[in-house]
Amino acid sequence: MQRTRFDTLPCPIARGLERVGDWWTMLILRDAFYGLTRFDEFEKSLKIAPNMLTRRLHSLVEDGLMERHPYSEKPPRFEYRLTQRGRDFRPVLLAMLAWGNRHFAPEGASVVLVDSETGKVAEPILVDARSGKTITEATHMVGTGPAASTGVRRRVAAAVERRQARKLPTRGA
Amino acid sequence: MQRTRFDTLPCPIARGLERVGDWWTMLILRDAFYGLTRFDEFEKSLKIAPNMLTRRLHSLVEDGLMERHPYSEKPPRFEYRLTQRGRDFRPVLLAMLAWGNRHFAPEGASVVLVDSETGKVAEPILVDARSGKTITEATHMVGTGPAASTGVRRRVAAAVERRQARKLPTRGA
Repeated sequence: MQRTRFDTLPCPIARGLERVGDWWTMLILRDAFYGLTRFDEFEKSLKIAPNMLTRRLHSLVEDGLMERHPYSEKPPRFEYRLTQRGRDFRPVLLAMLAWGNRHFAPEGASVVLVDSETGKVAEPILVDARSGKTITEATHMVGTGPAASTGVRRRVAAAVERRQARKLPTRGA
Repeated sequence: MQRTRFDTLPCPIARGLERVGDWWTMLILRDAFYGLTRFDEFEKSLKIAPNMLTRRLHSLVEDGLMERHPYSEKPPRFEYRLTQRGRDFRPVLLAMLAWGNRHFAPEGASVVLVDSETGKVAEPILVDARSGKTITEATHMVGTGPAASTGVRRRVAAAVERRQARKLPTRGA
């Protein structure tokens, strides 16, 4: 089945999802951050069918999240390394890790994020680097960027109106 | 096709993805943060087939991310509101928004996050709430939690070894 393509939409979330919006792709990226690079390592870790893995690695290379490097000439073998674009995806996975631990680990956490200097468990939160404020629904909202189309402006204006109905601040709008 | 279920895995990312790991579900959540609540609002915004939307809203309610509330008796009509669990997913979407804008908006941003007091564009980054440190690959790594199985311990130990091979700090391991 051909699914809808989202990368023609102006929404940056939709465009991001176009590249990584399935379970396998996200888990390949997770494993890449665990340091895996070779086809057989991903295959073994994920217990994924080879053709599914091939297709997803190919997309990740095509979309610029990974690069293919030869590591053996005879037989020809390649490893897959995260590019900067791929590495920049880490906050999305870590935000997912925090959410998964908060809501879907009733028996306690299995995997956590730790400070690599102190070994202490970290608590990842989103902060606005410009102001230092913690990002919450009350403090931050969506707005239009310079490339916003009429449709995007309408959608964001409607979101701001609904925010006002909920008595959340919108002074910036 | 029945896909692999991930929620039996101990990885919190896999468990999170089990609930939201497809494009439509993430975009429904995005629209819910835009303030949409009604079936026809989601349908119109996403141009999604009604049966697909029904199935995904049902899953979101089942997984505790949304709640169904009646808003009309005759005819019976319901709206879908985010629960706390659903609201806690916002950082994942905002991390995706930042990544999408950084890498897939060559013409400039259409949608941004803004400070709702000042209207200034925000730059969402992940910070460790316990130490105040910005979370990067150098400063933070995966570790095992109290519920880690032998398999998880092995996987994390291998990740730490690969980190050491890259000369990144692992004093905490």
